[in-house]
Amino acid sequence: MSIGHVTLVGGGPGAWDLLTIRGLRALENADVILTDHLGPAGQLEQFLDLAGKEVIDVSKMPYGRQVAQEKTNELIIEHARAGKNVVRLKGGDPYVFGRGFEEYLECLEAGISCEVVPGVTSAISVPAAAEVPVTHRGITHAFTIVSGHLAPSNPKSLIDWGALARLGGSIVVVMGVRQVRAITQTLIDEGLAPDTPAVAIQEGETQQQRVVRATAATLADVMEHEAIANPAVYVIGEVAGLAHA
Amino acid sequence: MSIGHVTLVGGGPGAWDLLTIRGLRALENADVILTDHLGPAGQLEQFLDLAGKEVIDVSKMPYGRQVAQEKTNELIIEHARAGKNVVRLKGGDPYVFGRGFEEYLECLEAGISCEVVPGVTSAISVPAAAEVPVTHRGITHAFTIVSGHLAPSNPKSLIDWGALARLGGSIVVVMGVRQVRAITQTLIDEGLAPDTPAVAIQEGETQQQRVVRATAATLADVMEHEAIANPAVYVIGEVAGLAHA
Repeated sequence: MSIGHVTLVGGGPGAWDLLTIRGLRALENADVILTDHLGPAGQLEQFLDLAGKEVIDVSKMPYGRQVAQEKTNELIIEHARAGKNVVRLKGGDPYVFGRGFEEYLECLEAGISCEVVPGVTSAISVPAAAEVPVTHRGITHAFTIVSGHLAPSNPKSLIDWGALARLGGSIVVVMGVRQVRAITQTLIDEGLAPDTPAVAIQEGETQQQRVVRATAATLADVMEHEAIANPAVYVIGEVAGLAHA
Repeated sequence: MSIGHVTLVGGGPGAWDLLTIRGLRALENADVILTDHLGPAGQLEQFLDLAGKEVIDVSKMPYGRQVAQEKTNELIIEHARAGKNVVRLKGGDPYVFGRGFEEYLECLEAGISCEVVPGVTSAISVPAAAEVPVTHRGITHAFTIVSGHLAPSNPKSLIDWGALARLGGSIVVVMGVRQVRAITQTLIDEGLAPDTPAVAIQEGETQQQRVVRATAATLADVMEHEAIANPAVYVIGEVAGLAHA
């Protein structure tokens, strides 16, 4: 029996036309597409002939988060072993907090060939859609993309937030809606100027995009008042204020 | 006289099929394409009918770096004012050290509409092509993309390299070939473990891709010995050693 092939495709931030041409071709050649709820997953019919393809939304599987990832890995391997061309379509880029490398390693361990097609990461493109460049000459020589899923005080946090406050670059936080108050307060306590410009963008690069502007000191209040919800990205740094300066 | 329109397009890291569909459409609709030498600029004939289009390689303009940027801005505005559909095609993403936001602001100030099409950044996709994910669960909650064009000791540097050494995330350095020895030595002096895995990739996502593996302590020697030259990206962090662990 022939063994299939797996392609991890970065689907970009939302609008399907921010998919790469290589990613589109992988989808066109797929027998099975495993999607989550991010990126272009909800728009497949708009750009793809789905006849003969099986589409599985793994974000809707009735399991807890960790179990769901194991089940996703199992499905990828199972379909590839059945000789299928499998595409795992992810939002953004597969390697930016997307657990893509876990899926890649699972394929390697199972002896299944796996190709990775990078995507447009939401962490850069969503700010851009709100006129916020992550870098600007004379303003920033660095930017940090950080997962905000854990409070800075959480012992499982792998980030030195004091170092981040002092680094001097733009700070882009993903998955950080719930912890925004703890994160901004920690950064300010560690030396970040409270009046540093900040911007939050919900559902960037989609029709539902919402943008709120604040400072490091006011971001949590503004996001709460405007009910900014996931998926959202926020940027703290001088770059957040450039377009409206 | 009708006024034209400008689109800044992120061309991705190299191979033309890592261009987005939106970027391709902008190129198809362009009257004038201003390119540099990065990304898919050298492959336009492979995917685009250039009949009726003017292609200008602004990287070949006989000026110094700063003057060249001013001249590029002038050309963008001049062609747009002449009613042309102008695409400024850049390598990677326009806002990742690409001076894209300067061009965007120039358009706004000139009263010319400007759209930005994000791209696949080399800073994430080039490491991926060498089996290096910028994030991995349990290993990294952050990564920093940093310009290495200035030595850490340069008074014009806007980066606190000590903070970067202590941050605890992956470090991705672009434009840092010349300063690799100063950068790695500074990071180690500031507390980064000398045996932290490191990888350097020259011309990633092209046929000429070359990868060398080292540690923070040996990266400068290995890159020198292997004559790694621009364009190159290097990654310092636990993620650099995962695929080969």
